Amino acid sequence: MKMEKETTIYDIAKQLNISPATVSRALNDHPAINIDTKKVIISKAKELGYRTNIFASNLRRKKTNTIGVIVPRLNSYFMSTVLAGMEKVANEASYNLIIAQSLESVKKEMANVKTMFNSHVDGLLVSLSYDTENLDHFEPLIKKGVPILFFDRVLTHKKCTSIVIDNLKAGYEATNHLIAQGCKHIMHITGNLQRNVYQDRLKGYRLALAESGLHYCEELVRTTDFSYQSVNEMVQYLTSLKPVPDAIFITNDFYAAHCIVALKQAGFSIPEDIAIVGFNDDPIAMVVEPNLTTVRYHGQEMGEVAAKSLINHLNEQSSIKDTNAIILHSELVVRASSLKGKST
Amino acid sequence: MKMEKETTIYDIAKQLNISPATVSRALNDHPAINIDTKKVIISKAKELGYRTNIFASNLRRKKTNTIGVIVPRLNSYFMSTVLAGMEKVANEASYNLIIAQSLESVKKEMANVKTMFNSHVDGLLVSLSYDTENLDHFEPLIKKGVPILFFDRVLTHKKCTSIVIDNLKAGYEATNHLIAQGCKHIMHITGNLQRNVYQDRLKGYRLALAESGLHYCEELVRTTDFSYQSVNEMVQYLTSLKPVPDAIFITNDFYAAHCIVALKQAGFSIPEDIAIVGFNDDPIAMVVEPNLTTVRYHGQEMGEVAAKSLINHLNEQSSIKDTNAIILHSELVVRASSLKGKST
Repeated sequence: MKMEKETTIYDIAKQLNISPATVSRALNDHPAINIDTKKVIISKAKELGYRTNIFASNLRRKKTNTIGVIVPRLNSYFMSTVLAGMEKVANEASYNLIIAQSLESVKKEMANVKTMFNSHVDGLLVSLSYDTENLDHFEPLIKKGVPILFFDRVLTHKKCTSIVIDNLKAGYEATNHLIAQGCKHIMHITGNLQRNVYQDRLKGYRLALAESGLHYCEELVRTTDFSYQSVNEMVQYLTSLKPVPDAIFITNDFYAAHCIVALKQAGFSIPEDIAIVGFNDDPIAMVVEPNLTTVRYHGQEMGEVAAKSLINHLNEQSSIKDTNAIILHSELVVRASSLKGKST
Repeated sequence: MKMEKETTIYDIAKQLNISPATVSRALNDHPAINIDTKKVIISKAKELGYRTNIFASNLRRKKTNTIGVIVPRLNSYFMSTVLAGMEKVANEASYNLIIAQSLESVKKEMANVKTMFNSHVDGLLVSLSYDTENLDHFEPLIKKGVPILFFDRVLTHKKCTSIVIDNLKAGYEATNHLIAQGCKHIMHITGNLQRNVYQDRLKGYRLALAESGLHYCEELVRTTDFSYQSVNEMVQYLTSLKPVPDAIFITNDFYAAHCIVALKQAGFSIPEDIAIVGFNDDPIAMVVEPNLTTVRYHGQEMGEVAAKSLINHLNEQSSIKDTNAIILHSELVVRASSLKGKST
């Protein structure tokens, strides 16, 4: 590939027959340079396609104005809203986002961290993969003083901040709502229990059961990878239980919507036979029939807060080192799928 | 923010009491350096947290190994699958993605292009905003020889390649399918007709009508921003037509699913009264009842092909300058929402 030669301040100086120092000062808006001279120089720079030499300037400043983002998967509705929020804030603050996905594998996550390390990102925003067990692979960056902020799927580290919703509270409220509808055999379908988000929702579920004097039963808790392919097997399992659960709290709207479709095909009425609560408030929740009760989880807001906290830290307006965790708001949105005897 | 001092080859050399030149050669795997010496040097480099000095090396090579991506919105299912495909290919080829969203505004798109210009991206992947009318704002990059590849929403430029599906054919097949079901008054709900994707689907719709001797009627073609808020007004409009359309081809699954919900609430049977075809094969299509007939559009594949074409060009394995357009496969997926008299 043939690249055109990069325009330098020397080219501009030569064409205008002035000194490179004057050009440099004018382009940096130095007060010593006359405003008309500045105009002439800026106009010539534009004409010649001059670009700020970020390499040389980064070399001096040791800053790249880039933020690395590592997420499990880019192609989920929730993650796409988080990224939209991050991009908005970063763009407004003149930071670029470099984005990588771990594809739910800690090995790929390690490779991503290495890439970010070698790309000299100024900071890192991370949501952990399915099977990440510790934060050792982030240590080289932490040692360099590169700030890292974990969001949604997190592990705690004394030098890093976490941004999460109160997953225990969310799980507690979802389960309590089902108990208030008169449900006694409440199933819980969720993700890998090593991840904080699923661990904490399960705690909330157990707490709600315990407070209401309902028996916690291991066969009513099942984990899944939330793949479309696994829905039928899960529905077969739960409908073979004796008694069949009268409610299910599922920590993923996409999976919950497909369970509703499969349960209706198997002859069950929702919510009369089985009440359903999902998680995330994905657009699918308003299309499935009956509409899905769910936990509204503000992805865009999480992305904005994460990016803003990191950038404020980088700009020395605040320090994330003082903050252990930032808890964001979430709320139960009640729709027809969980309202016993009141379904539309 | 206090940053630790960056480790240099001089620090490594000093600690090992050898020359910086030997360190540099060892780290670049030079054959003149003994393998045991290399091991000692690499181990020390790791211990001291040495990073390749990408700034200095980029300054020499004039390459950043970054690809810029500008899309209308990050938070759509289709775009998230495209990005997932791009990230996969870029990551495997050791390129980073810098991502920006235009939020459907040409002004923001111009600002994004400027950012990409100043970030010295090696190449650019772009899907145009709602109101972009020409490619003038890309000229500074094109003049620099930075390759640009447009995907999905494109305008043609003799120095750039476009990656699209055959939208005319897709629109033609969707409409023909409805005609084959016996529909005579087929409505078309679509996006901004300045954008190629919507323009071409409309052409396909018109062609199918013309071939079947059906009258083209302007009041049966309506454009929308596909917002959830506009669904009710659209349904009111179409149900007030005389006669009410017996089919609708809608170029967005999310919108089509919500139209189905609203039409059913208004007392219409789908597909008996009104047959519906959507576009994209979003996961929502398998949840709405009846399941939605749609055009399957491989977003992940489009992202992979776009990134691969650009990287092959950058690596001089092929040139996108010889290619005017790359057309990807799409296909009609028939489900219950359009099968007259055969609905489940």
